Amino acid sequence: MEIKNVSFFTDRLARLDNARMYEGDFFLTWEKTRDELESVFLVADALRHLRERNISTRIFDSGLGISLFRDNSTRTRFSFASACNMLGLEVQDLDEGKSQIAHGETVRETANMISFMADVIGIRDDMYIGKGNAYMHSVVDAVTRGHADGVLEQKPTLVNLQCDIDHPTQTMADMLHVIHEFGGIENLRGKKIAMTWAYSPSYGKPLSVPQGVIGLFTRMGMDVTLAHPEGYEVMDDVLDVARANAAASGGSFTVCNSMEQAFEGADIVYPKSWAPFKAMERRTELYGNGDFDGIKALEKVLLVQNASHMNWECTEELMAKTHDGKALYLHCLPADITGVSCAHGEVAASVFDRYRDPLYRQASFKPYIIAAMIFMAKVKNPAEMLKKLEARAAERHMF
Amino acid sequence: MEIKNVSFFTDRLARLDNARMYEGDFFLTWEKTRDELESVFLVADALRHLRERNISTRIFDSGLGISLFRDNSTRTRFSFASACNMLGLEVQDLDEGKSQIAHGETVRETANMISFMADVIGIRDDMYIGKGNAYMHSVVDAVTRGHADGVLEQKPTLVNLQCDIDHPTQTMADMLHVIHEFGGIENLRGKKIAMTWAYSPSYGKPLSVPQGVIGLFTRMGMDVTLAHPEGYEVMDDVLDVARANAAASGGSFTVCNSMEQAFEGADIVYPKSWAPFKAMERRTELYGNGDFDGIKALEKVLLVQNASHMNWECTEELMAKTHDGKALYLHCLPADITGVSCAHGEVAASVFDRYRDPLYRQASFKPYIIAAMIFMAKVKNPAEMLKKLEARAAERHMF
Amino acid sequence: MEIKNVSFFTDRLARLDNARMYEGDFFLTWEKTRDELESVFLVADALRHLRERNISTRIFDSGLGISLFRDNSTRTRFSFASACNMLGLEVQDLDEGKSQIAHGETVRETANMISFMADVIGIRDDMYIGKGNAYMHSVVDAVTRGHADGVLEQKPTLVNLQCDIDHPTQTMADMLHVIHEFGGIENLRGKKIAMTWAYSPSYGKPLSVPQGVIGLFTRMGMDVTLAHPEGYEVMDDVLDVARANAAASGGSFTVCNSMEQAFEGADIVYPKSWAPFKAMERRTELYGNGDFDGIKALEKVLLVQNASHMNWECTEELMAKTHDGKALYLHCLPADITGVSCAHGEVAASVFDRYRDPLYRQASFKPYIIAAMIFMAKVKNPAEMLKKLEARAAERHMF
Repeated sequence: MEIKNVSFFTDRLARLDNARMYEGDFFLTWEKTRDELESVFLVADALRHLRERNISTRIFDSGLGISLFRDNSTRTRFSFASACNMLGLEVQDLDEGKSQIAHGETVRETANMISFMADVIGIRDDMYIGKGNAYMHSVVDAVTRGHADGVLEQKPTLVNLQCDIDHPTQTMADMLHVIHEFGGIENLRGKKIAMTWAYSPSYGKPLSVPQGVIGLFTRMGMDVTLAHPEGYEVMDDVLDVARANAAASGGSFTVCNSMEQAFEGADIVYPKSWAPFKAMERRTELYGNGDFDGIKALEKVLLVQNASHMNWECTEELMAKTHDGKALYLHCLPADITGVSCAHGEVAASVFDRYRDPLYRQASFKPYIIAAMIFMAKVKNPAEMLKKLEARAAERHMF
Repeated sequence: MEIKNVSFFTDRLARLDNARMYEGDFFLTWEKTRDELESVFLVADALRHLRERNISTRIFDSGLGISLFRDNSTRTRFSFASACNMLGLEVQDLDEGKSQIAHGETVRETANMISFMADVIGIRDDMYIGKGNAYMHSVVDAVTRGHADGVLEQKPTLVNLQCDIDHPTQTMADMLHVIHEFGGIENLRGKKIAMTWAYSPSYGKPLSVPQGVIGLFTRMGMDVTLAHPEGYEVMDDVLDVARANAAASGGSFTVCNSMEQAFEGADIVYPKSWAPFKAMERRTELYGNGDFDGIKALEKVLLVQNASHMNWECTEELMAKTHDGKALYLHCLPADITGVSCAHGEVAASVFDRYRDPLYRQASFKPYIIAAMIFMAKVKNPAEMLKKLEARAAERHMF
Repeated sequence: MEIKNVSFFTDRLARLDNARMYEGDFFLTWEKTRDELESVFLVADALRHLRERNISTRIFDSGLGISLFRDNSTRTRFSFASACNMLGLEVQDLDEGKSQIAHGETVRETANMISFMADVIGIRDDMYIGKGNAYMHSVVDAVTRGHADGVLEQKPTLVNLQCDIDHPTQTMADMLHVIHEFGGIENLRGKKIAMTWAYSPSYGKPLSVPQGVIGLFTRMGMDVTLAHPEGYEVMDDVLDVARANAAASGGSFTVCNSMEQAFEGADIVYPKSWAPFKAMERRTELYGNGDFDGIKALEKVLLVQNASHMNWECTEELMAKTHDGKALYLHCLPADITGVSCAHGEVAASVFDRYRDPLYRQASFKPYIIAAMIFMAKVKNPAEMLKKLEARAAERHMF
């Protein structure tokens, strides 16, 4: 079906209760209502629709989007830059190596000093348990107070670009992809998704993706299975969230220790490596104590532990067990592909190759999801504004 | 008093003689007339006023602002980026590590090569005595000639983001804060400010702030005291400037070796560490000779020397000696706070905490000061242009 | 002659056949027709003309220009940034050190992940023989497919910012400079240009400039001489290109081993160091094998070999042999200047100094050449669009 104009999205958007998102922030998906999540999806689709029609979506004529990446990033970095740019904001990266932050400056001080003209702050801080999300809250508290005190002309909105608990821009993009693949959010009810651990030769991959997936997909009445070898448990709090979500949405949430069981009849599979929560907690302590020998020792133990689960690979045999053998394969990328990026990895090359196009489309939703999160925080009446942008009909690109 | 429109600023601005600032540069505050300084303050306030009313202050639809930081920076970096952005310029950082400058390129060549579409160049080069300001002049000479020769379509304006002599964007922001706190520039006459050295466990902090403060605040008929332990003298030339300024403005300028004496009855205090001018000169020589052992030895001596002045701390006892015990505490940030960022530092935690809000407001003027410096250099009739921007009434942010 | 309006350029542009450039890429000059090259020159001049008249040339209201520099760069980096900015695109640098590319991601994946909102990708990858240009093609193949698959809303155009074979943004800027110096492209026929090797104390300078020069200047019916010591041969394929070009354009192409012979009667000289092609090929192999000792040994041999050709310097004596002793001296900068940036270099200080102004003007064409390459790829009817921009008459800078 060809969508002719933005009212396709705004008609529905106008009926959702999302007023609380205005001037808010985006930390964790489970802190948002179902209406609020659906609003983000609709706005993301609407912004993409306008851009495809070469209609400018700039709501800012100037302003900054500040990014702070405490871990390497390609797709999230460029997605954030793209989202800011399509709304009219210029990205300024806070590179802690080039700053004076090491001089013992407090979070409150730094947060204000970078925000004089910031409309958005995007932070990736996923390495240490109990730290990343807490840091983001400190930043928001600081700029909220700075705005109230007349230091900042505006309160920048925070977008969580990955913390120790959740990775909302990733999982929301994942879900918007799934919504498109299944023809609508209403079609997700009763579908089975397998979020499973998979072997990787590297160690210490963050937990935010599996945690984010079970925290989000349980909102939609789906049957969500989390599978991993014993010892690879995720954060208890998020398990509780997933259970409560499943109960509330009329879906189910199951944890098991078998990849086969999880794949059985699945409509969607998401096989991906992560480090055990307990190990990440331990690592956080060791870093806190500056015990680098301890970290090296821990790493060794974890790699040995990983190696005993090399058979947790998304093979053609496993894919054959899914619903009609045609489950939608998801990954946040980059994947560890057997025989391509490593000798043994998360996924067989033939599986990955078959899903390459959908995987790239999955990733392509992230800039729009981030833009939509910003849009909801910055615009009082999103449905009206989208129609206003359509009516303004400013060309993004003069051909 | 609520200010309703920009004429509040432009009425006064139109009566000041600032024509010479057009197409000029900003090196040192004492190279500017009193009218010129006041023009920068008025334009900074006017730009902030427009932004607070959500009125776009873009005078460029495209163009670059080049920044070159030869020392770490957070607040100046983001202030420069904010200033450029609010006028419509995109920041491009000249990262000397990623460039070919090491290949033996001359200043003249580099300055032209980065300036083809540059409207502004902001430079921080504060580490070496006799070098930073001189370097900025070389850059301006080069681009002036490049523009005359048809190499550059425009002559970028230089903004001194801190040199070995002055730190005008800092001290002008400091003074604009003071103007706001005291209810007008006309109220500064006769007020006492204590610019005093303070102990820090680090070494080699630049002299540009104390020098800039005594060079600027003596312009306003204030009683300016510079206090430091013996051996922590600043640049002689700047002392001469301060004396001459004080005489001309009807204020006073005193140098003493007692923090107590300086604080006595002060309306404003600015306690901050710096390295002795002679030591910085010596360090510059050692660097010139590549004598890194010499530098290490010098550093040791300086730290020992510092340690004998640990009592130069801005304590509650000292603050009690100021006018009504309520002097305005200033700092360029980040401060060395006793028991917070170090064991012994420049200021007691309780003093710093009490002034945190005003300190952040003090910092918040810097982006507007930088924008005003650029504005004065780029706009022929600043008062008219501000009114034009108000009349254009382009929204900065569509809500 | 003063040019009053853009029709000076568009009248001619409209008569050239350049339709194939729309939605294309720019890899090598010899893959373009003569009409296409001339179109780039006309659009570059037209864009500069509009900017000089303070007319905005923005054809984008938002969008990204991605840059990837695998080698240090100042002028190309700032030229690319300037070109993107003047068309309305924001530059985002792909810094491979900060990205996850090391995780074994394929070119196809990275190319898509950075391009969701990219209108342009500029790449400098000149270090390894057989790699740089091939890499650029992989990127273009990837984003072409990504666009077709619905991953990317638009196919970014690639601009080759220097590869192992050609350096088209440099040589096109060089030629536009020459066109201006000689009063028109039609005046180049029969002029003699000497592209000659020159001594430098450094090793491993890329071959893309000499190769690019002989590949481009032979298109214009010029007499092109390539001179270098024995052992400093360039890529065979490009020699074939130059020969074929010369035959087709009615000019000539000569290779010789004498700087004197090349300078004899030359109208233009371009003395510049480069590494022998065979040595660069060998170095590529050694890197491929991770043989860093081998690379060090090779470097030593090459420096010794260079040292035996110290007399290949552009001196006043040699300049005197050129046409009327007044050949136009070209260099891509930075040059190794004898007694200035090194003890013995490519050019005598007095020669370089005399040509400094024209050299900087030569460099000043690069941003416009890059902008023109992008313009031709992004605009369906370039002549019409230029007239539209003139008629729109949006101010670039409100004075």
